[in-house]
Amino acid sequence: MLTLYYAPNTCALAAHLALEHAGADYKAVRLDFSKSEQRSPEYLKVNPKGRVPALVSERGVLTETPALLQFIAQSFPKAQLAPLDDPWALAKANEFNSYLCSTVHVNHAHKGRGYRWSDDPAAHESMKAKVAQNMGDCFELIEREMVRGHWVLGEKLSICDFYLFTIVQWLPGDGVDPSRFAKVSQLAHAVRELPATQRVLAA
Amino acid sequence: MLTLYYAPNTCALAAHLALEHAGADYKAVRLDFSKSEQRSPEYLKVNPKGRVPALVSERGVLTETPALLQFIAQSFPKAQLAPLDDPWALAKANEFNSYLCSTVHVNHAHKGRGYRWSDDPAAHESMKAKVAQNMGDCFELIEREMVRGHWVLGEKLSICDFYLFTIVQWLPGDGVDPSRFAKVSQLAHAVRELPATQRVLAA
Repeated sequence: MLTLYYAPNTCALAAHLALEHAGADYKAVRLDFSKSEQRSPEYLKVNPKGRVPALVSERGVLTETPALLQFIAQSFPKAQLAPLDDPWALAKANEFNSYLCSTVHVNHAHKGRGYRWSDDPAAHESMKAKVAQNMGDCFELIEREMVRGHWVLGEKLSICDFYLFTIVQWLPGDGVDPSRFAKVSQLAHAVRELPATQRVLAA
Repeated sequence: MLTLYYAPNTCALAAHLALEHAGADYKAVRLDFSKSEQRSPEYLKVNPKGRVPALVSERGVLTETPALLQFIAQSFPKAQLAPLDDPWALAKANEFNSYLCSTVHVNHAHKGRGYRWSDDPAAHESMKAKVAQNMGDCFELIEREMVRGHWVLGEKLSICDFYLFTIVQWLPGDGVDPSRFAKVSQLAHAVRELPATQRVLAA
């Protein structure tokens, strides 16, 4: 039995979608960030980073979305959520997820979490002012170079689509109109329509 | 035949070390960042992100260090540079690499690349001022929670050690004394002493 710790409107949605689409037997535990539950002593014992997602198995605790996504795909191979038998194709999936994690999510984080990188309130404002441009630039690159077909990896739904869908939800709040990106918008719409996605979003 | 595009003092060193330790047949092509070669039209055809590393194979181009590291480990399984047969253990390796990529490297980048996230020179200065604290905090967590033995994953050298070694090289320039972290310092020293590491550093 797996337990996923998550909070609404965070990147934990990607792993949540992957678990549901994989048909995993799992429990989802919601943290309330408005009460700083991710900083509670109980949760810091689970994840000393004080962030979500965290996935608990009988082997221990796993964090970091790209690691969770590949682990879920490998644990439920029948769901075929990643090209597990082709190291190059799997690397291309991980390349995409790593870009979302280390560049796109980081750009988004400069809107509300500038305090991580500067103690100056004026600097936080100047970071916020650049978020729309940076997120727009990232999604132009994703649209032009990275979405290879109906889904990110081409003809098959994968963990990459759940992660991209998750970050697309942040675009309006970041001041970026998703409809600028035709392929990305169509893909996000298609992910949303899937029954497993609907179950997660209703929860 | 694989071709690795790299530049000195960048995270591309991690993949370079992995290739050399794996006994791969590869060519390393050095870019000169002082001449902005990573922004040349020729290189942007290889990697539209304008960054290193980029690994070229007969299948195409691969970027993002965590993706490269797992791909190299999977392509040269005899070198045993990752726990390939255990999805949980492999996920723990990827968790570590993803943390270095999306948190530690990002914190470091705020020293010299603040222009990515703000157009205000005063904000860049305030970001620089916080780098030593952030990098120190990250390495306290790495030392306390993540290094599980002589090497990151315990008793076996892995791709995680090459990536950690790479980032440890940046600490003095970030204003952090690596000797504060006993396990990390010993590990970095041990990676440096390996003959394959010496060959890469001499190149």
